Amino acid sequence: MTDLHVYDTTLRDGAQQEGLNLSVADKLDIARHLDELGVGFIEGGWPGANPKDTEFFALAQRELSLRNATLAAFGSTRRAGTVAADDPMVRALLDSGAPVVTLVAKSHVRHVETALRTTLAENLAMVRDTVAFLHGEGRRVFLDAEHFFDGYLADRDYALEVLRTAAEAGAEVVALCDTNGGMLPPQVGDVVAEALAGTQARLGIHCHNDTGCAVANSLAAVAAGATHVQGTINGYGERTGNADLLTVVSNLQLKLGQPIVPEQRLREATRIAHAISEVTNVPPYSRQPYVGASAFAHKAGLHASAIRIDADLYQHTDPMAVGNDMRMLVSDMAGRASIELKGRELGYDLSGETELLSRVVEKVKDLELRGYTFDAADASFELLLRAEVEGERLSYFDVESWRVITDSRDAGEAVSEATVKLVAGGARVVATGEGNGPVNALDHALRQALSGAYPELDKLELIDFRVRILDAAHGTDAVTRVLIETSDGSTSWETVGVAPNIVEASWIALVDGVTYGLLRQGIPVR
Amino acid sequence: MTDLHVYDTTLRDGAQQEGLNLSVADKLDIARHLDELGVGFIEGGWPGANPKDTEFFALAQRELSLRNATLAAFGSTRRAGTVAADDPMVRALLDSGAPVVTLVAKSHVRHVETALRTTLAENLAMVRDTVAFLHGEGRRVFLDAEHFFDGYLADRDYALEVLRTAAEAGAEVVALCDTNGGMLPPQVGDVVAEALAGTQARLGIHCHNDTGCAVANSLAAVAAGATHVQGTINGYGERTGNADLLTVVSNLQLKLGQPIVPEQRLREATRIAHAISEVTNVPPYSRQPYVGASAFAHKAGLHASAIRIDADLYQHTDPMAVGNDMRMLVSDMAGRASIELKGRELGYDLSGETELLSRVVEKVKDLELRGYTFDAADASFELLLRAEVEGERLSYFDVESWRVITDSRDAGEAVSEATVKLVAGGARVVATGEGNGPVNALDHALRQALSGAYPELDKLELIDFRVRILDAAHGTDAVTRVLIETSDGSTSWETVGVAPNIVEASWIALVDGVTYGLLRQGIPVR
Repeated sequence: MTDLHVYDTTLRDGAQQEGLNLSVADKLDIARHLDELGVGFIEGGWPGANPKDTEFFALAQRELSLRNATLAAFGSTRRAGTVAADDPMVRALLDSGAPVVTLVAKSHVRHVETALRTTLAENLAMVRDTVAFLHGEGRRVFLDAEHFFDGYLADRDYALEVLRTAAEAGAEVVALCDTNGGMLPPQVGDVVAEALAGTQARLGIHCHNDTGCAVANSLAAVAAGATHVQGTINGYGERTGNADLLTVVSNLQLKLGQPIVPEQRLREATRIAHAISEVTNVPPYSRQPYVGASAFAHKAGLHASAIRIDADLYQHTDPMAVGNDMRMLVSDMAGRASIELKGRELGYDLSGETELLSRVVEKVKDLELRGYTFDAADASFELLLRAEVEGERLSYFDVESWRVITDSRDAGEAVSEATVKLVAGGARVVATGEGNGPVNALDHALRQALSGAYPELDKLELIDFRVRILDAAHGTDAVTRVLIETSDGSTSWETVGVAPNIVEASWIALVDGVTYGLLRQGIPVR
Repeated sequence: MTDLHVYDTTLRDGAQQEGLNLSVADKLDIARHLDELGVGFIEGGWPGANPKDTEFFALAQRELSLRNATLAAFGSTRRAGTVAADDPMVRALLDSGAPVVTLVAKSHVRHVETALRTTLAENLAMVRDTVAFLHGEGRRVFLDAEHFFDGYLADRDYALEVLRTAAEAGAEVVALCDTNGGMLPPQVGDVVAEALAGTQARLGIHCHNDTGCAVANSLAAVAAGATHVQGTINGYGERTGNADLLTVVSNLQLKLGQPIVPEQRLREATRIAHAISEVTNVPPYSRQPYVGASAFAHKAGLHASAIRIDADLYQHTDPMAVGNDMRMLVSDMAGRASIELKGRELGYDLSGETELLSRVVEKVKDLELRGYTFDAADASFELLLRAEVEGERLSYFDVESWRVITDSRDAGEAVSEATVKLVAGGARVVATGEGNGPVNALDHALRQALSGAYPELDKLELIDFRVRILDAAHGTDAVTRVLIETSDGSTSWETVGVAPNIVEASWIALVDGVTYGLLRQGIPVR
């Protein structure tokens, strides 16, 4: 493996993202995923600055056994006019028990004078004193030189003086931060190369994506000699986010041939990126490089016909290298070639079935016009394809009617109650289910109604539910698309429903989800 | 203005994105936005390849009057073994009436042989013949050299021969395409520089974002001498998308000082990016550089206190240059400084009100723990802040109860009916509303109930409705967060509701939306 630090700051800088809130349990969870991925350092937070981060480090000492990564605590240099050893914030860094302490320090003259409101000399003293103290206490000390690139352009000598001071006081790494994210790669490369001459510390890079170049900037820094790269999983971070660590690592390893993490760990990248987005509750970005759901998905008819011949002609790397997968998308652009490929994925050999393929293409086009999407709902597509192949739609039960009532009295919590009437296994059933929402109540009533004829449904669980309003210009008057993910404990599948009414759209997706679940288990229609 | 082509392919390559479906009307709409933005060329689609694109060009000739942009039709070189003048697909390009025709051609030996299944010589003949024919018919001809970078690495001489052939036959631009998106900036720069020596045409660049470097790759190509840049709005496109044209243009103009579009047009960038995402119905990506909702949003308490002193220290460019705005986020990381700044934004001078500020911080932290987010719901935050300042929550009416019934019989379309009981203007009102969904029905019933006391509500319209399940691991058992956008015709505001029940969460957001609407108009409580 190359001697390059992969330094993850998802738990600290990533958590600055709008809408992202991590509990202590979330942080521990993410740290375990990061360790599994094989990052070298996990920046856990700022102990002393907020109780959550203090608690994280306390729990981490007891509960978190890291196999690969080293834990880092983030904090600031001592306050102006004090002594590091007496600064309670500096002491909190020691108390965190983290083997690495990463100190943020000002390296831009205007920031020292205007934001920190101290002298340039005192700022250097703060760096020297704090680094030396923590180093003396046996910690590995890294320094984040905040606003370094802007600072270098404003006053190069002072910016370099901060690096030298930190290195001389014992800092092992000095990370150059493009804090405001305004740099472009050539500039980053030049500044890193010049800074390398001015310090004996290992140089690191910390980029934000405000120019859309966080990844390229990180690579430019590495090319210029930086050997420590900071970033976050899924590019989480304030404003436009930080450099996406998985993209940077994948580029270094798969494009530039630098072995950074063991191959089998990189193959976990997609799974871990998604697992972390489950914890952060930030929906995964489908267009994310390497690990995005769409990253190796092909829709164009033009491509689909050629992919049948040689997949490598149309992908920049093997998706398996990052644990992702090529997918053929079924969409109204799909020609027969895509449907045939998709059918093959699902176990149907449709080669030569020209008429059937055309019928499916027409059907898909028609449904997509009405708001359906099969890109994201493989199970619904398989039911559709199966219906065309078999000549009739698979139906385990006949629905007579359903109804949901949601009400709230005296500002009390709302309650939903659903009634479903259907015929299954030869018997008419009327079942009622309660729930904390209309879809939940319907789901309960439907399972209740089917439990006699199909006890196998017991295993199924509705695990995700997504709603998309398809014509936002008309608000609730618009068509609603609901995607539902159902799990049987070992695998899961997505189904789709579209209707003007959100409850009806959910019902359609629920019925498909249950039907597909029974089909997967090979249950016959009773 | 610099003599650089800004070539937009949102309507063609952008439309290859997973889940993106554009009608002809959508395409015309987007073309108007692009023209307003000031792009030089708008690639409208592939006439002849699908009826939608043929219709787009037919309608564009009649209905689309472009003030800045030139329309381009995309198509392929003639089929092997035919004559361009007789190829119906080539004729369709002529018939489109577009002044520019952009031909895609193979420039990678393996693609010629494996995907196109013809000889290298015939591929060159196809390029020569098709370019010459269209050029002879008075069209400006651009050539997209597909898979150029991979092709150049596989067989440099042949790739360059394709460029030369196109230029000699009359192509004005040859765009080098990183079709599979696997390139990194230094490589792109090198290949463009070498290709420049090998052709007399203007060189263009077309990048995809598979390595997260589409923007940096485009800039590297321009630095190396390319004078034609292709991309899409919001980076739409297959897999990880195309180069985001607005990011590329903003970088060139604001970072590298190349005047590409008039300043006042760039100031429309944020508005137009969002308007186009309304048409495509792809939710805007909040972390998008320059134009994203979070692009200039600050959450960190550390930053907030310094931003009060000098905003420029914490932003890489003036957000107004792209029509965006700095925002202070209210979140559980917010210290009193952020709340004070946010209050100032809303017209409250809270400086010195330490106790009040602490109370608001506590309240926000508590609500965010329960799933609320005020990042995206300014109006709800303002109501909360107002309640703390005034000592009581603004209430135009007192709700007694509400109920919604949704039902479906005999597989018919579902119908929702809501009943709301409340006291407003001194009178108890019971009102019923129907709708095509529970929230729509509640919205109608609520307005109906309030119409006597507050006829001003007539102007308000619910224009957007978003649902987020907060703990996806439990599906419909989870807490639901609903964001509602309400408009009074000239402006709009967002409110938030959180509850286990989606209908209740919607109700909370609806009530806030209506309350804020009345407050904005200065209506007194009756």
